Amino acid sequence: MMTPFDSWFQERRDAHRFVIERIPFDRLEQWGFDQQTGNLHHASGRFFTIEGLSVDVESAPVPHWEQPIIDQPDIGILGLLIKRFDGAWHALMQAKMEPGNLNMIQLSPTLQATHSNYTRVHRGRAPAYLDLFLEAARTGVVADALQSEQGSRFLHKRNRNIIVRTDREVAMLPDFRWCSFPELNRLLHRDNVVNMDTRTVLSCLPLDAEGESFRPPPAGAFAARLRASQEAPRGLHTFQQLVNWFTDQRMKNRVRVHAMPLREVRHWVRSADAIRHESGHHFSVIACRIETTSREIAAWTQPLIASASRGLFAFVAREIDGVLHLLVQAKPEAGLCHGVELAPTVMCLPDQYADAPPERRPPFLDLVRLAAPEQVRYDAGQSEEGGRFFREENRNVVVEVGADFPLDVPARFVWMTVRQLKAFIRHSHQANVQARCLLAAMGAW
Amino acid sequence: MMTPFDSWFQERRDAHRFVIERIPFDRLEQWGFDQQTGNLHHASGRFFTIEGLSVDVESAPVPHWEQPIIDQPDIGILGLLIKRFDGAWHALMQAKMEPGNLNMIQLSPTLQATHSNYTRVHRGRAPAYLDLFLEAARTGVVADALQSEQGSRFLHKRNRNIIVRTDREVAMLPDFRWCSFPELNRLLHRDNVVNMDTRTVLSCLPLDAEGESFRPPPAGAFAARLRASQEAPRGLHTFQQLVNWFTDQRMKNRVRVHAMPLREVRHWVRSADAIRHESGHHFSVIACRIETTSREIAAWTQPLIASASRGLFAFVAREIDGVLHLLVQAKPEAGLCHGVELAPTVMCLPDQYADAPPERRPPFLDLVRLAAPEQVRYDAGQSEEGGRFFREENRNVVVEVGADFPLDVPARFVWMTVRQLKAFIRHSHQANVQARCLLAAMGAW
Repeated sequence: MMTPFDSWFQERRDAHRFVIERIPFDRLEQWGFDQQTGNLHHASGRFFTIEGLSVDVESAPVPHWEQPIIDQPDIGILGLLIKRFDGAWHALMQAKMEPGNLNMIQLSPTLQATHSNYTRVHRGRAPAYLDLFLEAARTGVVADALQSEQGSRFLHKRNRNIIVRTDREVAMLPDFRWCSFPELNRLLHRDNVVNMDTRTVLSCLPLDAEGESFRPPPAGAFAARLRASQEAPRGLHTFQQLVNWFTDQRMKNRVRVHAMPLREVRHWVRSADAIRHESGHHFSVIACRIETTSREIAAWTQPLIASASRGLFAFVAREIDGVLHLLVQAKPEAGLCHGVELAPTVMCLPDQYADAPPERRPPFLDLVRLAAPEQVRYDAGQSEEGGRFFREENRNVVVEVGADFPLDVPARFVWMTVRQLKAFIRHSHQANVQARCLLAAMGAW
Repeated sequence: MMTPFDSWFQERRDAHRFVIERIPFDRLEQWGFDQQTGNLHHASGRFFTIEGLSVDVESAPVPHWEQPIIDQPDIGILGLLIKRFDGAWHALMQAKMEPGNLNMIQLSPTLQATHSNYTRVHRGRAPAYLDLFLEAARTGVVADALQSEQGSRFLHKRNRNIIVRTDREVAMLPDFRWCSFPELNRLLHRDNVVNMDTRTVLSCLPLDAEGESFRPPPAGAFAARLRASQEAPRGLHTFQQLVNWFTDQRMKNRVRVHAMPLREVRHWVRSADAIRHESGHHFSVIACRIETTSREIAAWTQPLIASASRGLFAFVAREIDGVLHLLVQAKPEAGLCHGVELAPTVMCLPDQYADAPPERRPPFLDLVRLAAPEQVRYDAGQSEEGGRFFREENRNVVVEVGADFPLDVPARFVWMTVRQLKAFIRHSHQANVQARCLLAAMGAW
């Protein structure tokens, strides 16, 4: 049955036309490889550059590697406008096309702006609804933090995740729609409808602000247990113990990086239409040409990153003393400002380990892959950001284990409640984008 | 009158012998300038390197500059052991010599260790009391965070600040002494007695942990008002408003840095015995030879950094609705991981502005310099870390202004209570070392 949302979403999709095709690098316009360094950059120096990175992580199974990485110095703004009406909180969502999107259109936050859009340092058209964000400063802001993006793809990239509440009348522009929080939760159970930007911003929403709750009664038994885990005053460890564990992991898994010319990066090979790892693993850099009626510019070309295979992001969950806990990993990644952030229990491309002996496989990978259906609490395919990643879908899963599962876990892992994980997220650069987005996807935002 | 502390401290000073002399670079042993880059490094590749840095801060009065900077990738540990006895909390302090120290010996935290000392990855003598820190993990830890050091001198340097409580019998080693918290507070009013490492660790101590207070009754009227400001449930702004302001400042004052060869750094000149800025401002890189009986190695040479003049670190304080607030600055610095951290109201080398017209002088500099004695709540000379900085003393001041002083301040400044500033400090990379140390020095730790 078509819901009102489905009809609207279909209509938005029909309202635009897109053609995306992969092209060889020499058909890129304005983009090219630097003669000296081999870095891939735009003629204007704007947008982003793909350069080389030399990485050392003493504690890692592979302590040194080199890779291409996206250097995108601009801090983007991901802004969500929320408003209470008809007895429920709603978020103002945009049906937005991005070149790398699966399904072409996904639900995006109210505002996606560059730093210069936001601060209006250059003239040019202001993004829709920007005024509501600017005027809300210091009064209606309920969450605001700089957060990391994919640390294996971006060098020190940061986005500002901001949520603003309003009581004002808001004009409805084409492609925009108010979605209630319960509706968003239902959409998060579908594959590739709610985009990555929305999921990361949602993960920053507090349970309440100044006494007012943002949450409807939870729908379903698992949602109720997630809510209880967010409200629980204590967990297996105190927050101070978790901070101590996390600081220790950050110190012991130090990441050192140095920029290097892309052409000198070892084990990566550039052909006419891709830069690939010689193993076929990890990801490749490709180029695309995009034609659309839904952007100011009708056609353009750009590089994109294509994953080598489908990723798996999974939380293992377990009830401890009546409260649901998540098994959180301290994971080093090349491009993170602090090297290490909190990550899902499992975060990898499983195909890369197809032939690996058990001791070389990431901890808990087999547990998640072989979980019985009755252990699976959440399971959906979710997309990464379509402005940089080409049709990348990763499986997002939550698997619950029983009381026989050991509380004692390897040093890089720790059990924490949803409330404790949310307390880390509130501050910048503590939890990685995969952990934040999975938390939102499962409904624990 | 000599206190028992004074007698002990004098005795410790007499127990050791030190000779420090400045030498030209060509008398450095094991240290030398790289042929290609001109970087100053140790033959072993260990310790630290002095290299060049290119810095861009769009929003700054000088939007681009180049400078020498210390690259010291190791994460150091600054650990303080605390214990309650005789009705008071005490900290285990060490009388420690560092080559750059004023007065040769200063009071240092219980543990100063490198990452490899701490994790014992290399063999070698374990630092004193290390076991008490390792065994305390997850039980006795009351504070633990990675914190930045001087952002204008160090590139992305981080230290782990950790405070551990113990109930055990602790053997007293030579040079160590228990100091009660009130005694430490009194010593913080003297010039150059309590070293920088101690001050930054103290700033991380929470008011209480699990219901137990670490604080004695405040001594004096200003101390009582600082305590009230730490206990105040609310300030002029909510914490969420402060987070929003801080995120905004971090976004708007973005710092971009690139490593560069030291020999190519413009406006810095290397002579036989120093690398100086051609203006004579900022700092210089020098070399010293040290002979001592108090270290494992009897004599060594090393580079040090010498400040061009005495710095001024000052908080302006004001009572707002009966609660003391501090005027905090969001300050960009080249070497900070996130570019911007919370800083004192004034933080500069005043001599550099001696001839500057009023509009070119840092905000509030003249207010602090010209403050009447009855406005000054704290005033002492405090040293920077003697392992890297040569006899560097900065004036640490708190000046209180009256109710006629405007609440409305320039965008880079904000009023906050001690409690709110402490809440930022609890997390990594929020408040800079000058703000943390000044907070400790004034007794608001």
